[in-house]
Amino acid sequence: MTASLAVAAQPTHINGLNVQAAVDTIAALKADKSLARFQFRARNKWVNGGENRSTIRDFYGAGQEDTSRAASFEFTNGEPPVLLGDNEGANPVEFLLHALAGCVTTTFVLHAMARGIAIRELSTELKGNIDLQGLLGLDDSVPAGYEQINIQMHVKADCTDQELDDLLNYALQHSPVCNTVCRPVPVVIERIKA
Amino acid sequence: MTASLAVAAQPTHINGLNVQAAVDTIAALKADKSLARFQFRARNKWVNGGENRSTIRDFYGAGQEDTSRAASFEFTNGEPPVLLGDNEGANPVEFLLHALAGCVTTTFVLHAMARGIAIRELSTELKGNIDLQGLLGLDDSVPAGYEQINIQMHVKADCTDQELDDLLNYALQHSPVCNTVCRPVPVVIERIKA
Repeated sequence: MTASLAVAAQPTHINGLNVQAAVDTIAALKADKSLARFQFRARNKWVNGGENRSTIRDFYGAGQEDTSRAASFEFTNGEPPVLLGDNEGANPVEFLLHALAGCVTTTFVLHAMARGIAIRELSTELKGNIDLQGLLGLDDSVPAGYEQINIQMHVKADCTDQELDDLLNYALQHSPVCNTVCRPVPVVIERIKA
Repeated sequence: MTASLAVAAQPTHINGLNVQAAVDTIAALKADKSLARFQFRARNKWVNGGENRSTIRDFYGAGQEDTSRAASFEFTNGEPPVLLGDNEGANPVEFLLHALAGCVTTTFVLHAMARGIAIRELSTELKGNIDLQGLLGLDDSVPAGYEQINIQMHVKADCTDQELDDLLNYALQHSPVCNTVCRPVPVVIERIKA
C-alpha cells in the first residue's frame, strides 16, 4: 500500500462529522481555553394567551460573535385546548423534551466519532411526568417542573453492547441539556423598566 | 344596570385566556387531583452529524390521552459550522432557552389572569453561558450544562410596578420549565436491545 492510499483510506467523516475539523477544534480549545466559552441567546415575544414566539440567531463562541446564520430561526410555543390554548405550537415542556433528546443524541454521536464508532441508526423516545398542581399553585409541596424524565434509546452501531453502554453513560454525563436538567442551574430574572 | 348587563360586563377573556374555562379547570382539579397528572412525550431520530428531528403530538393529561392534534409538530436540531454543523436548525441548548422563555411567559400571563391583571405587551431576552470544555470532556471540573441563565423581561400591564414584581417572582417559582432547570431533575436512560 502506498502512502497516498493509506491517507485516502482514513475516513474524513465519521457519523457525518468532519474528523479533522473536530481534531483541530479540540487542539485550539486546549491551547486557549477561553475559546470554549459560549453564550447562547433567544428573544421571545408574547402573542396572546399561551402563544408566544422566539427568534434565535446570534451567539458568541470560539472567541467571536457568530455570523454564520443568514436568517433567524423562529419557534412558536402554544398550548392544547385542555390547557386553554389552540395548539398554536408544541408547549414549552414539550420543547424541553425536544432539546434534551437532541442534546443526548448529538453528544452520543460526537463521542462515538471520537472513539471511532460508526453509528448506523439512533432514535429516542422521551416521557416526562408532571403534576400541574405545581404550575397552578394549588399545592406548595408539588414541584412545578418535571418529576423525572425517561429516555429510551434504540441504537445500532459497529461496536459491542458494552462499548455502547459505556458511550451512553458518558453521553448522559456530558450532554449540556441533560446536565442543565439534572443539576440545579440558577435562572436570574430582571424586569426592565422602560 | 340590569342583571343581564352586569353579566355582559364580565370579561370572558383576560390576556387571551378563557376565564370561565380556567375557573372550571381549577375546580375540576381540586375535586380530583389525579386530573393534574400529565405525561408529555417526544420521539427523536438522528439524521446525520449534529442534525436530528423530533416529532411531538400525543400526551396524557386531565385523565385521558389527548386527541386534539390533527398532526405532529416537527422540530429539527442542528449545529452551526463552529460546532461542526451546517445550521440545519437551532441547537439543543438554544431550544432549551426557547422552552424557558415560553414557559415563564405563559406562567406569567396565566397568573396575571388569575389576579385580574391585563397584560398589554410582554417580551423577554435570554442569555445562557456555557463552557464547552464540559461537553468535550476536556476538564471534569467544568459542568457540561449552562452555568446560569439570565432573563430580561419587558412588560406593560394595567397594574402597579409592585404588582408586576410580585407576579414575576411568582411566575418564576411556578414555571414548569424554570423549575426543571433550577431544581435537580433525574433523567433516566435505558437502551432498548432490539
